[in-house]
Amino acid sequence: MAKQSLHITVFGGGNVATHLAKNLLALPNVRLQQIYNRHLNAIKNFEQDTEIIDDLSKLKPVDMFILCLKDDVIVPFSKKLRAFDSLTVHTSGSVAMTDLQTRRKGVLYPFQTFSKDKPDLDFSNIPILIEAENDSDLQLLKNLANRLSKNVQKVDSKQRQALHIAGVFAANFVNYMYRQAAELLQDHQLSFDLVKPLILETAQKIQTLSPAEAQTGPASRGDYKTINKHLDFLKTGSKYDLYQYLSELILKDSERKKI
Amino acid sequence: MAKQSLHITVFGGGNVATHLAKNLLALPNVRLQQIYNRHLNAIKNFEQDTEIIDDLSKLKPVDMFILCLKDDVIVPFSKKLRAFDSLTVHTSGSVAMTDLQTRRKGVLYPFQTFSKDKPDLDFSNIPILIEAENDSDLQLLKNLANRLSKNVQKVDSKQRQALHIAGVFAANFVNYMYRQAAELLQDHQLSFDLVKPLILETAQKIQTLSPAEAQTGPASRGDYKTINKHLDFLKTGSKYDLYQYLSELILKDSERKKI
Repeated sequence: MAKQSLHITVFGGGNVATHLAKNLLALPNVRLQQIYNRHLNAIKNFEQDTEIIDDLSKLKPVDMFILCLKDDVIVPFSKKLRAFDSLTVHTSGSVAMTDLQTRRKGVLYPFQTFSKDKPDLDFSNIPILIEAENDSDLQLLKNLANRLSKNVQKVDSKQRQALHIAGVFAANFVNYMYRQAAELLQDHQLSFDLVKPLILETAQKIQTLSPAEAQTGPASRGDYKTINKHLDFLKTGSKYDLYQYLSELILKDSERKKI
Repeated sequence: MAKQSLHITVFGGGNVATHLAKNLLALPNVRLQQIYNRHLNAIKNFEQDTEIIDDLSKLKPVDMFILCLKDDVIVPFSKKLRAFDSLTVHTSGSVAMTDLQTRRKGVLYPFQTFSKDKPDLDFSNIPILIEAENDSDLQLLKNLANRLSKNVQKVDSKQRQALHIAGVFAANFVNYMYRQAAELLQDHQLSFDLVKPLILETAQKIQTLSPAEAQTGPASRGDYKTINKHLDFLKTGSKYDLYQYLSELILKDSERKKI
């Protein structure tokens, strides 16, 4: 049975808009009707593939508007779309669905980190979290999300927020740890390349083990001697404080496990 | 030109000893002469491939003894090897080479995380950091290390310590961040699987970008509104404190960058 073709318009010229638009263009039963951005320059690459616009008066009605906009722009921008009956969804982890000012509301939240530097990002393995106010809109959203990704899940706004925060820990804070390692190596005339295999292995480990099972290191084995050696080495400063703070948290967790 | 065959004995029955012994057995011009462990049980799997011993009086002289022992055992154990003229190296990140009690001293530090659960770990991509007291021993060590790995580097004890601490940040503390994410998701009836693609992508990103360039998230863009939303959501407890602590560090770093 042939799937019905979905007509979609994407709003935005940033990373999410760009990657999403590319993935939508590659789908057989989806038609990327228009891409809107305040500045045409950011979406000029798409002019061969679809109609690019910077003027809301040119907007055509479609099945779904997808707002890939900055968090604080989403709500004010959605006011401008009140005249349309299209299902309007945003792609943010932290904006409540109900804050949208359109008649039909939803969220399509691709849970991944997006960089400009990566030209191609395949959505099929990216978890997509969806939310809509009513069942028929949820079906429409699910229909699109399932064409984009193998991993689609319905969540509520509270769960989406929890997931967003989990992402801050698992990506942003993790990257900050990578930075500490990089700085430490640079301070001692060592290449950051040395730590890259360890970083990959650490990320790969928890694909099959739980992070609690995968925890290793001086703090998790209660090895105060090594912890103190490391603190002596770091002497003082923000790396010393951070090492001490995190080691204490891990020591506490390990003791809790023993009880 | 055929390489001269190296005779090696491995000491220990843990993860490092096991993986190293397996890799040594696979090398054409290396002979794993013996494996010693206090308990034969832990090294029984090797009895088809080499002589396994639990009695130091059976020890044969070889080119190199490799002590894959716990940090606090290395030095006292090395005293028992004083009668031998073999180059004796340990595999620890934090024990000083000069603490070894043997005549000839060195370090062969494979910089990776080792788990029992992974049956096979190919050393060829694992950085190996080496150190020896004199040039001829360094040559011998380099000779072996180059057969094991494509990535061999001479470091001093201070650099090795810095690398070890970098590893704590890039692996142990990183894994602790994964744990925070896992707990948060569990608290909201969400699967940890949702965050796995993000974790992999974050680790893959810094294979080509520097961690400073790869830093994203609310704190790195100075998005206080989202930070406060997240803190409101976490309410209190160790995740709240940790989120606030790390966000402040990242905010400070981003401001420093702007100046």
